[in-house]
Amino acid sequence: MPRLRETGEFAVIRRLVEGLRPGSGVHVGPGDDAAVLRPEPGRDLVITTDAFVEGRHWLPDWIEPGRLGVRLALANLSDLAAMAARPRWALLSLGLRGDTPSEWVEALQAGLVAALERDGASVVGGNLAAVEGEAWLSLTLAGDVLPGHAWTRRGARAGDLLAVTGTPGRAGAAVALIHALGEGARAPEWAPLLAAWRTPASRVDLARALAASGAITAAVDISDGWAGDLVHLCEASGVGAEVQRGAWSADAALDAAAHALGRTPDDFRTGPSDDYELLLAIDPAGRERCAAIALEAGVPLSVIGRLTGPAEALEWLEKSGSRTPIEPRGFDHFA
Amino acid sequence: MPRLRETGEFAVIRRLVEGLRPGSGVHVGPGDDAAVLRPEPGRDLVITTDAFVEGRHWLPDWIEPGRLGVRLALANLSDLAAMAARPRWALLSLGLRGDTPSEWVEALQAGLVAALERDGASVVGGNLAAVEGEAWLSLTLAGDVLPGHAWTRRGARAGDLLAVTGTPGRAGAAVALIHALGEGARAPEWAPLLAAWRTPASRVDLARALAASGAITAAVDISDGWAGDLVHLCEASGVGAEVQRGAWSADAALDAAAHALGRTPDDFRTGPSDDYELLLAIDPAGRERCAAIALEAGVPLSVIGRLTGPAEALEWLEKSGSRTPIEPRGFDHFA
Repeated sequence: MPRLRETGEFAVIRRLVEGLRPGSGVHVGPGDDAAVLRPEPGRDLVITTDAFVEGRHWLPDWIEPGRLGVRLALANLSDLAAMAARPRWALLSLGLRGDTPSEWVEALQAGLVAALERDGASVVGGNLAAVEGEAWLSLTLAGDVLPGHAWTRRGARAGDLLAVTGTPGRAGAAVALIHALGEGARAPEWAPLLAAWRTPASRVDLARALAASGAITAAVDISDGWAGDLVHLCEASGVGAEVQRGAWSADAALDAAAHALGRTPDDFRTGPSDDYELLLAIDPAGRERCAAIALEAGVPLSVIGRLTGPAEALEWLEKSGSRTPIEPRGFDHFA
Repeated sequence: MPRLRETGEFAVIRRLVEGLRPGSGVHVGPGDDAAVLRPEPGRDLVITTDAFVEGRHWLPDWIEPGRLGVRLALANLSDLAAMAARPRWALLSLGLRGDTPSEWVEALQAGLVAALERDGASVVGGNLAAVEGEAWLSLTLAGDVLPGHAWTRRGARAGDLLAVTGTPGRAGAAVALIHALGEGARAPEWAPLLAAWRTPASRVDLARALAASGAITAAVDISDGWAGDLVHLCEASGVGAEVQRGAWSADAALDAAAHALGRTPDDFRTGPSDDYELLLAIDPAGRERCAAIALEAGVPLSVIGRLTGPAEALEWLEKSGSRTPIEPRGFDHFA
């Protein structure tokens, strides 16, 4: 298998570019100094960037390059889902060691492209740099949305419902299992959790369907950890929140992992995680419509609480009826 | 000076975001899951990404963070200049060690923002990740252009003139001087070369003025090395080229550096370099107009040769009248 230092930068770029199909709205694609894109008139452009660092965002022994490409796509798609945007165009910036097999790079791109294409986006350019230390992958993803229709963190009002998509906590539990059990994490009982980490689902289609309902007042992607992102949403909207302990979807696999690791399922649901799920503020009048849309999409949507007035705290409503503060435990790369 | 691991990711991001001013066309800026931008109707979007790796693209002892930010901006602005696009919006993705002073990061962003603002662009988002090895900086820059008016590498025709902007070779010579002389490279005689490397000039205004002339048929940025980028332009356009030896602007500082390093000035002008200059194909009928625009802009524009038929090679016309092949010596990160 040829390594990058044998293949050379331009030969690898040529092969990567040859592996790309032109996307819609692309006037000049990869291979020039920059891509030329044609957003439709009457569309706002939405753009995000997210990066992975080897050893922190991925463990080479635990994920193949194709799935890693999918995850990198999902990390960015999740940001566009949180804005209810339609994904369109991506640029891939890579820092790789010279001994990286060129097949590894091509498999990474193939996984990335497949995941982007499922949501209607294409790769239109990128950059390749050499590193000595950890490899890194940085994706920038642009999408569009009808003018003024992007969700933000700012629109939630007291009285709106709080809901989460999917079964958050599984990806973080998978990583904790790998660190605690090593090869033991490959046991069949943990397969659903590892699958959640290795092959996350996109919430783009669900977000766009929910956006059409007009019932979502604010949204945030919870890949940094639900509690921290709840704080971001409440600060941006100027509201408090009360969350019902036990209102999340039941999750037997997560319960088993938490038990094995001596932690609680809510530790994983609310703390630093790698789940690409959404936290949504819903106008109560739209609750039934949103539930029907989620059911149609086959995605769990759990109403877990409601937003309160600007002077209120962020609190758990415990099953006992008491109230305890929600601790903002987001993921901090440097802390 | 607080380090990233003390300050924490979110506090640094908050300070970086506070240091940004909203740019035109920005509907939702930094601090949400993604930025929301509003391209004008009737504009094509042009987008590029370029990354720097510590030790390869910059030597910490030789450049302050503010100037490094300027260089990162310029690396991307140069790609947009090569498409005759108007810079608009940027996303900054950083991989930094925990012991990086937060002031360093803020100075980097300040230099980047200042350079982008000079050309009309603003930072609308980004990402911050922790690394153990070399730091890296990846910028994505989007701009716009009238539909169909972006320059590409593909439009050059036999008979068009070949021209280069500025005095290419100086930045590469500066890096070679640093490697060969160490602290001796700080001697006053090398200051013009070090300045070319540390504080490159933007060619965005010149490119947009030249684009308005309608005389440019193809363009490429030569930051990877003139000879390699000439090959890219000729391959994309399906033409050959003949370049007059000695047609470049005279450059006494470059001549002196080449002499001190036992190399020729053309080694630096044509080989791997860090100059953010443009190689342009010019319709001969527009030659005088382009020369007048460059004079007005205060940027050297040297006509160095002409493009030939598709069956022709890429050749030097030596001063003796003989012809020698142009060797494509682009910069390859992995070779």
